[in-house]
Amino acid sequence: MFALLALRPAWAEPLAIDKQGSFFIGGRDVKSDTLSTLPAYVPSGTITVGQMYVRYQIPVGASRPPVTLIHGCCLTGKTWETTPDGRMGWDEYFVRQGFPTYVIDQVARGRSAIDPSIFNSIKLGKTPADQMPPIFSAGHEPAWAIFRFGPEYPKVFEGMQFPLEAQGEFWKQMVADWNATFPSPNPTVPALSELAIKLGGTILISHSQSGIYPFQTAAISTRGIAAIVSIEPGGCPAATGDLTPYLKLPILVLFGDYVDLAPRWAPRLKQCREFADAMKKAGGKTELVVLPEIGIKGNSHMLMQDRNSLELAAWLVGWLNRNVAAP
Amino acid sequence: MFALLALRPAWAEPLAIDKQGSFFIGGRDVKSDTLSTLPAYVPSGTITVGQMYVRYQIPVGASRPPVTLIHGCCLTGKTWETTPDGRMGWDEYFVRQGFPTYVIDQVARGRSAIDPSIFNSIKLGKTPADQMPPIFSAGHEPAWAIFRFGPEYPKVFEGMQFPLEAQGEFWKQMVADWNATFPSPNPTVPALSELAIKLGGTILISHSQSGIYPFQTAAISTRGIAAIVSIEPGGCPAATGDLTPYLKLPILVLFGDYVDLAPRWAPRLKQCREFADAMKKAGGKTELVVLPEIGIKGNSHMLMQDRNSLELAAWLVGWLNRNVAAP
Repeated sequence: MFALLALRPAWAEPLAIDKQGSFFIGGRDVKSDTLSTLPAYVPSGTITVGQMYVRYQIPVGASRPPVTLIHGCCLTGKTWETTPDGRMGWDEYFVRQGFPTYVIDQVARGRSAIDPSIFNSIKLGKTPADQMPPIFSAGHEPAWAIFRFGPEYPKVFEGMQFPLEAQGEFWKQMVADWNATFPSPNPTVPALSELAIKLGGTILISHSQSGIYPFQTAAISTRGIAAIVSIEPGGCPAATGDLTPYLKLPILVLFGDYVDLAPRWAPRLKQCREFADAMKKAGGKTELVVLPEIGIKGNSHMLMQDRNSLELAAWLVGWLNRNVAAP
Repeated sequence: MFALLALRPAWAEPLAIDKQGSFFIGGRDVKSDTLSTLPAYVPSGTITVGQMYVRYQIPVGASRPPVTLIHGCCLTGKTWETTPDGRMGWDEYFVRQGFPTYVIDQVARGRSAIDPSIFNSIKLGKTPADQMPPIFSAGHEPAWAIFRFGPEYPKVFEGMQFPLEAQGEFWKQMVADWNATFPSPNPTVPALSELAIKLGGTILISHSQSGIYPFQTAAISTRGIAAIVSIEPGGCPAATGDLTPYLKLPILVLFGDYVDLAPRWAPRLKQCREFADAMKKAGGKTELVVLPEIGIKGNSHMLMQDRNSLELAAWLVGWLNRNVAAP
């Protein structure tokens, strides 16, 4: 029995949850006359849209500040759950490390509702077809380079850590993206601010498309933000802009490998370096880490799902422990 | 300390999870030339659609068969999570009672992807606008009667158990529904069959729109189905149809209160009674329970969220313990 226990890795031990559940942040009521074109459902009525779905787990003996995990383009909160090849996601890893963990679905993504009125209005000829909102999905082939699995589909970067043998399971995670229908900042940003204030001090961990959201959230108010971790952001705040909202926050901008080989990503890293340099000059606590520069190689854009995802999470927990005070 | 523990209700004790995570069932690759109308995302490529999202928790010491919770119209798996007024959902209750618990998002709902190609094709004038798929949302006002909060918005049935003070949080759970774009049986049905076979014996618990799905799943194959619980189904199998697939399964059809006061629901209860009677005559193990007939009053169509939701869950666990063998 003891031998068996000794063989069981720590992460396979039972997980003790103090409290878990889900809720929504934000949302507004909208009246519409084109909710339906079906006889069984009347067209006129009020629906609630703009809310952000949040699922959370608080471990027994939580000792660290809550983390909020914010997914990127064409994905949902599933990003942070079980990896395509069936390993533990960052959502559970953070819980096991003592962090209450909040996973969101961006507004109009996953379990956060969309408004179907425009589709029915176009169907009925009340709105011209060219006013259709620009909803898009990323195909596997173009996504291949965006996620930096290789320079182009189906070539693979040498030493790639993404579990490409399970890519079929990853493609299932991808969903249609409504974000181009929204102004900037995306409505997820004020919802994150409301969530941060509710939690009273959370580490906002964003990815890719949502990389900029924690910065935009801090620009609304730094209330409730304990730190920002921006993973492979689509962009950082402008180095020449107002840096005041970020100066007192511990900030980590994190990139994986092969960035300079990716025309889509190299300019973004460059722009984030400029931001990090400007922050340093202004006295901020911003760190930019490119994983191969600290000896960790082979990470794709989806580094939270790469083969070494839990090693990276452990490294990130170490960074958080050094830079963010206990609540 | 002991006094404090004694004051803490059993359901507030820490939850011990042996294993949790999420995955997809099914899905197929589709090629499209209208994935996007945006310069940043190319229009041509392959996407994966038709998959069903599944989230699960297996408690330490699981002693009961897995349950699969299947939401209804215009909703997602959120149905079974924290109630609108902030109480524990059935998802956690079943875990605490020793049941591995699987919560799905129907195909093309929540975290299960949709295909945006038709929208972009219409936007570009390649497809006529009247071929827009009939996507619909249920407005609060018509949904009021559908969910049997009262005879019509905003009248409330006497003794109503739904926490209407938190209705704003309930409306946030509602999402646009793609199901009218699918043939019957809905693609969620074969995905449920695949899930059931994978789990090797699960209790399929469906609700409303999905009420018929477990029966349709059994008609594909009874493999992996330990029992069917159909809560407030939109319909039961025809009494005059082939009942063979259902004869050996423990089946419970469950309705709440006020059904005879609801023109939308009274005929459905009548049709289910005919099914249950036919099953009895044919020697099946089908039970139809209308809650007020066993002395439980005031339940809406959303009985898993009503004030007495956990009492109902406890009653259901009792029924399952009497009717479904341990795995």
